[in-house]
Amino acid sequence: MKIGIVSRKIISTEKNKRLEGYPLYVLDILDTEGNLTGESVVAFDTVGVGIGEKVIVTIEGDAAVQLIKHKDAPVDAVIVAKIDRIDEIEK
Amino acid sequence: MKIGIVSRKIISTEKNKRLEGYPLYVLDILDTEGNLTGESVVAFDTVGVGIGEKVIVTIEGDAAVQLIKHKDAPVDAVIVAKIDRIDEIEK
Amino acid sequence: MKIGIVSRKIISTEKNKRLEGYPLYVLDILDTEGNLTGESVVAFDTVGVGIGEKVIVTIEGDAAVQLIKHKDAPVDAVIVAKIDRIDEIEK
Amino acid sequence: MKIGIVSRKIISTEKNKRLEGYPLYVLDILDTEGNLTGESVVAFDTVGVGIGEKVIVTIEGDAAVQLIKHKDAPVDAVIVAKIDRIDEIEK
Amino acid sequence: MKIGIVSRKIISTEKNKRLEGYPLYVLDILDTEGNLTGESVVAFDTVGVGIGEKVIVTIEGDAAVQLIKHKDAPVDAVIVAKIDRIDEIEK
Repeated sequence: MKIGIVSRKIISTEKNKRLEGYPLYVLDILDTEGNLTGESVVAFDTVGVGIGEKVIVTIEGDAAVQLIKHKDAPVDAVIVAKIDRIDEIEK
Repeated sequence: MKIGIVSRKIISTEKNKRLEGYPLYVLDILDTEGNLTGESVVAFDTVGVGIGEKVIVTIEGDAAVQLIKHKDAPVDAVIVAKIDRIDEIEK
Repeated sequence: MKIGIVSRKIISTEKNKRLEGYPLYVLDILDTEGNLTGESVVAFDTVGVGIGEKVIVTIEGDAAVQLIKHKDAPVDAVIVAKIDRIDEIEK
Repeated sequence: MKIGIVSRKIISTEKNKRLEGYPLYVLDILDTEGNLTGESVVAFDTVGVGIGEKVIVTIEGDAAVQLIKHKDAPVDAVIVAKIDRIDEIEK
Repeated sequence: MKIGIVSRKIISTEKNKRLEGYPLYVLDILDTEGNLTGESVVAFDTVGVGIGEKVIVTIEGDAAVQLIKHKDAPVDAVIVAKIDRIDEIEK
């Protein structure tokens, strides 16, 4: 999984009908320090994310499709959790 | 999924017969700001895309193949939606 | 698989219920020389890792989900082994 | 899928027996402009490619294995089509 | 698949029991010219590789797991062939 920040919402009317019913967001992927990596991904939301929230995104078709009602949906990325905080581990 | 812009069409006569019946496009992948990333992908179109349109592409074999008639087609990328617009989320 | 070092723990209360029961860590991916690559991944722990340990992480939905109780969990990375040491092979 | 150019042939006698029967090539991956990206991939040929030809390669285990006789072959990339030409789309 | 050179062996005692019985190596991935790319991968050996040998590695869970006795092993990379030589194709 990757850490991402919810940055944009995608509005799409012409799409495959199996993609309907889940909001579609652009996530900016963050590195370990919480900085933007420059990479982004489009993901479905199954958690109910809010503005600018940090989330965990699962990026892989087989894994991602498990949370979607339509098991044959062409989905490869899903928001699976909100992040409360990230604790540094004492070394 | 990734955001791409339809940039070229591929003409191929010698190909696996399970690939027939779907137009094959080159998509330039865009970053969060809508700029070209330099990455590109070849994808089947199942939506009916037009010239220079922004689309969402699912990149992953299992997920992608769901929209194709031949379930055993060797496909790893499919155009799944057109993008009307991308809204910035107020922070 | 990749070599990673356990660097942070993620605290998440709002998440999919199929993700519950496994600690969730941020791993920094290491290169052949043991240096940080700058890449990181969020992974479930099924081994019982400790502070700053070097581990092997499997990154791929189908493979990763095999170690999870919920076979339909949306998981794409799992810690599968601790590394005792890495031997250079004499050439 | 990606666009590649057939650049080298791999000769391998000690290999898994389920890999036998298909020629194995090195492909240099090309970008949208047809320039080398520096990335390369090893792929099976199921089309019958010739010298220096531009081809489409499917890169993903589940999708790739569909064209191989042995359904349990450990294959993650297959040449699926020859490219006649790539048309720029008028904007 | 990718071309790699066997560079290190990983010693791991605490690991998932389904990972037992196969030696675990670090491979340095090579580019088309045979130079190091800086990328590395941890892979199981099912061929019986020796010191500094060039090999082909399949990187993908579904494909990789086919060669492993435990079909539910959390494996995403397997050495599938030794390379005798790589022939440049005359253009």
